[in-house]
Amino acid sequence: MDTTTQADPVTFGRHPDTYAHWRLSIDGDRATLVMAVQEDRPLRPGYRLKLNSYDLGVDLELADAVQRLRFSHPEVRCVVVTGALERVFCAGANINMLASSSHAFKVNFCKFTNETRLAIEDASRHSGQKYLAALNGVCAGGGYELALACDEIVLVDDGNSAVSLPEVPLLGVLPGTGGLTRLVDKRKVRRDLADMFCTVAEGVKGKRAVAWNLVDEVATKSRFAEAVDRRAKALAAGSPARASGGIELPALASTKSGDTTRWQHVTLSIDRDKRVATLTVKGPAADLPEDPAAIRKLGAAWWPIAAFRELDEALLTLRHNEEEIGLILLKTEGDVESALALDRVLAQSGSDWLVAETRAFIARTLRRLDLTARSLYALIEPGSCFAGTLFEIALAADRSYMLYDKDQPVTIAISAMNGGAYPMSHGLTRLAVRFCGDPGKVDALAGQPRVYDPTDAEEAGLVTVVADEIDYQDEVRVAIEERVSLSPDALTGMEASLRFPGHETGDSKIFARLSAWQNWIFQRPNAVGERGALTLYGKPERPAFDFRRT
Amino acid sequence: MDTTTQADPVTFGRHPDTYAHWRLSIDGDRATLVMAVQEDRPLRPGYRLKLNSYDLGVDLELADAVQRLRFSHPEVRCVVVTGALERVFCAGANINMLASSSHAFKVNFCKFTNETRLAIEDASRHSGQKYLAALNGVCAGGGYELALACDEIVLVDDGNSAVSLPEVPLLGVLPGTGGLTRLVDKRKVRRDLADMFCTVAEGVKGKRAVAWNLVDEVATKSRFAEAVDRRAKALAAGSPARASGGIELPALASTKSGDTTRWQHVTLSIDRDKRVATLTVKGPAADLPEDPAAIRKLGAAWWPIAAFRELDEALLTLRHNEEEIGLILLKTEGDVESALALDRVLAQSGSDWLVAETRAFIARTLRRLDLTARSLYALIEPGSCFAGTLFEIALAADRSYMLYDKDQPVTIAISAMNGGAYPMSHGLTRLAVRFCGDPGKVDALAGQPRVYDPTDAEEAGLVTVVADEIDYQDEVRVAIEERVSLSPDALTGMEASLRFPGHETGDSKIFARLSAWQNWIFQRPNAVGERGALTLYGKPERPAFDFRRT
Repeated sequence: MDTTTQADPVTFGRHPDTYAHWRLSIDGDRATLVMAVQEDRPLRPGYRLKLNSYDLGVDLELADAVQRLRFSHPEVRCVVVTGALERVFCAGANINMLASSSHAFKVNFCKFTNETRLAIEDASRHSGQKYLAALNGVCAGGGYELALACDEIVLVDDGNSAVSLPEVPLLGVLPGTGGLTRLVDKRKVRRDLADMFCTVAEGVKGKRAVAWNLVDEVATKSRFAEAVDRRAKALAAGSPARASGGIELPALASTKSGDTTRWQHVTLSIDRDKRVATLTVKGPAADLPEDPAAIRKLGAAWWPIAAFRELDEALLTLRHNEEEIGLILLKTEGDVESALALDRVLAQSGSDWLVAETRAFIARTLRRLDLTARSLYALIEPGSCFAGTLFEIALAADRSYMLYDKDQPVTIAISAMNGGAYPMSHGLTRLAVRFCGDPGKVDALAGQPRVYDPTDAEEAGLVTVVADEIDYQDEVRVAIEERVSLSPDALTGMEASLRFPGHETGDSKIFARLSAWQNWIFQRPNAVGERGALTLYGKPERPAFDFRRT
Repeated sequence: MDTTTQADPVTFGRHPDTYAHWRLSIDGDRATLVMAVQEDRPLRPGYRLKLNSYDLGVDLELADAVQRLRFSHPEVRCVVVTGALERVFCAGANINMLASSSHAFKVNFCKFTNETRLAIEDASRHSGQKYLAALNGVCAGGGYELALACDEIVLVDDGNSAVSLPEVPLLGVLPGTGGLTRLVDKRKVRRDLADMFCTVAEGVKGKRAVAWNLVDEVATKSRFAEAVDRRAKALAAGSPARASGGIELPALASTKSGDTTRWQHVTLSIDRDKRVATLTVKGPAADLPEDPAAIRKLGAAWWPIAAFRELDEALLTLRHNEEEIGLILLKTEGDVESALALDRVLAQSGSDWLVAETRAFIARTLRRLDLTARSLYALIEPGSCFAGTLFEIALAADRSYMLYDKDQPVTIAISAMNGGAYPMSHGLTRLAVRFCGDPGKVDALAGQPRVYDPTDAEEAGLVTVVADEIDYQDEVRVAIEERVSLSPDALTGMEASLRFPGHETGDSKIFARLSAWQNWIFQRPNAVGERGALTLYGKPERPAFDFRRT
C-alpha cells in the first residue's frame, strides 16, 4: 500500500490570480468563494479530480483564500462558499489520491485540511468573517466537512442533493476532517441521529436534513439564491463592521542552496543522513515602527507577518516534503531587547485590526508547530532571542537546551505576549500547560515580564536542561542521536499525548480523539489491505473484513 | 503477527481465597495488596510471568480486589499496594504475552487494565479508599502506570530501583495504561521532563524522581517500611471513617446452553453466523426492600448489585471471548413501575454506604458499556422495562428502536437516577450528551421523572426510531444486517467519536487520545512488523524503522 508517489516537492505559495480550483470575488462586505476544481490539474499525476473532489493542491488554495481574506479584505464580513458544478457541490477528498498515497502523506494531508477548516472557524470567531456554505448540489464526505466548518449551511432542495458522510459505509475509514466531532460537538446533532447519518451512504436531504440539524435551511432551486443572499446579509449584519483597506500578501521569496532554504527571516537546513532539520528564525530589528499607521504602511513586510509567514511555509515544507526528518532543532538569532520592543507593540496595539490579525496569525502558526509530528528541541545559544513571542517557540518544543557560558551570556525573556495571546488548540497557553500543576506560577511569570539568565531560567523551570560550555555540545549531540534512533510512530503518539495536558476542546478533539482513530484505521488491513474497503473502492469486488472488533 | 492464541475462553470470577498472583490482607482500616505473580500460571500458555510482569489473569484478580474492598471491607481507608519480590516491584505487562496476542486481544487487554486503574481512582474519589503504591523495587512500564493510578507513591532508594516507562525506547509502542496522560494530567509532571523520562529506558530514581514529581517520596531500605506506614496512616486519617461490616460478593452462577448463557437476571445469546449478540437484563421484582438495613441483609442478592454484576460479566465475556460479535442488541424484561420503585430507593438512600457503593458500581458498569467497542442497539419492545437506571442502557446505545403497537403498549421512563448518578467517563450524563445542544431540555427531562409512551418518547427525542407493528421487525432486521456488514474498525472509530460529545477529562483522554494513538502504533510495522521493535524485543537484532513521521 505504501506506494509513495515520489514526485516534485510540494510548493505552498498561492494567489487568487492563479488559483486553478477556486474563484474568489469580493463585493462590498461579502466574498464569494466558488469551488471549481479542474479535473486535470491534480497536485501530483495519477488521478483526476472529478466532481469537485479535492487534493492538497485544492486545499492549499482554499487555505490561501481564508488567510488572504483576513489580511487583504478586512472589510469582508461574510464569505459564501459554493460550487461551480451543476448538481454537485463537492464529492470530498479524492479517493484515488488517498488510495495511492503513503500513510504519511495521507495523515499530513488530513492534518492540513483540518487546519484549514479550523482557520475558517478562527476567522469567524476572531475576525467576524462569517462563513456560509451554499450547497448547490450533492455534498459528500470532505465536502460536507467543509460545510460543517462554516457558520451556517444552506442546501438546495432539488429532490436529489443530500449531505453525507459516506466514509464508514463506502470506504471503511472515518471522515478525516473533523466531521464526526463537528456533527455532535458543534452542530449538536443528537448522537443516535449522527450514528444513522454516518452509516447511510446516500446521506440525508430535504426536511430531514434540517430536522436533524445537519443543515440550517433547504431551499428549492428557484429560491436557493434568495436564501443564500438573505442568510449572507444576516450573517454580515450580525458581525461588527471592520476596517477597510487591507494589505497585500506578496509571494514569499526563498533561495535554496544544497539542503538549505533561506527566506528573509527564516532558514531551514536539512541533514538527511542524521534525519535532523535546523530551523532558525531571525528576530526583529531594533527600529520597527510602533504606530499602527506605520505598521499598515509596512504591511506584509512588517517583521511578525513576514517572519511567521516564512516559519509557516518552512513547517509545511518539513511536513510534506521531508517526511523522514524526525527532529527539528529550533533556533533564533537576534536581539532580546528588540524582540521585547516588538512584543510591546503587539500587546499595546491589539485593538488595531492589522495587529490583531497578526497576533491571530502568529497563534495559528504556533499551533501548526504544536501539531507538527516531529520531535522539537529548542537550542538556546549565544546570539539567540527567545523572548516573548519567540519564546513561545521554545515553549512549544518537547525539550529546550540552554548554554551557560559566562563569556557569552545567553538570556531568554517572558513578555506580556506569553500571557494568553497565543493559545494552543485546546485553548490553554503554553506557559499554563508547562506549569499546569502550579497555576499561581503561571500568573506570576506572565504578569512579570523579565529577562532570565540561565541560572534564573533553570530555577524558574523555563528550560529543560542548562549545561555549561564543557558539557553543552555533548549533551545536545547525545540527545539528538538518541531521539532520531527511536520509533517514529511511538514518538508521534508520545508527543501528541505529552504536549497537551489539560482539558480538550472541539479543536483539540479533532486532532486527538478523531485523528488518532483515523490514523489507526488508515493502517488497518480492513481499509488498506488487499481486500480492504479503501483498496477496493470503485472496483467490482466486495471488501472482505476481519470482523474482530477492538 | 495476528497469531491469535485460540485457547479456552477467559473466565472472570475471582476470589481472594484463590488468587494466584496477589495476597490481600486487612488490618483495621488498612488493606495490603501484595503483588506476587506466579511465573508459571499465565492466563494462557506460551509465556512466563517473570519479574512480577502481568497478564489479563493478574489484572482480573486486581480488579476483583479493588471491587471487593469497596463492598466487603468498607472500613478500609487506605490500601497499600506493594510487591513480594526482592528488588523488583513490577516489570509491567508481559511482553511475550503482548507479542503473541492478536491485535483485538491486545486492545481489549489494555482497555480492561485501564478500567481497573480507573476503578482504583474511583475508589479513592468516591469511597475514600486511598491507594498508596509502596514500590519496593524496580517499577517499569505498566508497573509504574499502576503506581500512577494510586494517590501517592513511595519508592525505595537502594541505588538501583527506578520508576520507568521504557515502552517508547525499548518496544516502539506507547505505555498502554494511561501512563502518559497521568504523568502530565494527574501528577502534573512538567511536559519536557515527562518527555525526558519517557525516552530513558532505565527510568529515574532517587531524588530526581521526587524532584520531577514522578514519586512522592524515596526512602532507604531501612526506612522504607516506616515511610510506607507513615503515609498509609496519613492517607487513612485524611479519609472519613466509613461503615464496618461489608457484604460478601459470592461467585456468580451461570449456565450455558448452546450459545446462550444465563445468569439469574441476565441472558446473553450469541448468533455467531450473524455476528450479533442479544443481551437481556431482567428488571427488579415488585417487592424489593426500601430500608437500608434490609438491603444490607440481602447483600449481593439485592437486585441492582446482582443484575449489574452479571451485566458486567456478560460485557467482559463479549469483549474477550466473542471478538467477532459486532453488534449487541440490548433488551430488558420486566415491570416499569418496579424499576421506578427501585430507583426511588437508589435516589433516596444515596447516603447509605451500600446504596452509594451500588450506585457507583452501576455507574462503572455503564461506563464499561459505553467503552465496549461493539455497536449497540437498544430494542424497546413489549414486556421491556427501560426505566430510570435501566433506561441508561438505552441511552448508552448507538441507536434505539421502539415498537408502537396499540395492542401491546410499550413505555420507557425517566427517573431521578438519570439526572447525574451515572456519569460517563468524561463526566457528563448520557442525557446531557444526548441533548448537548439543549441543556434546558436536559434539566426539564431529568427534573420531571415520568413514563413515556412511544409517541411521547419520539417527540421528546428519547428514542431513535419508533415503528409500528407493520414496520418494526423489518426496520430492525435491515438495521442489524446493514450494521454488521460495515468495517468493524471504522465503526469502532466512529462510535468512539459520536458517543462522547462535550469536554474530555483525564479519564476520557486515556481512552480517546491515548488509547487511540496506542491502537494505531500497535498496528504499525515499526512495532509489529518482521523487524519491528515489539517483534524483536529480547532478540539480538536491532529493529529497523521506516522513519517517515506522521
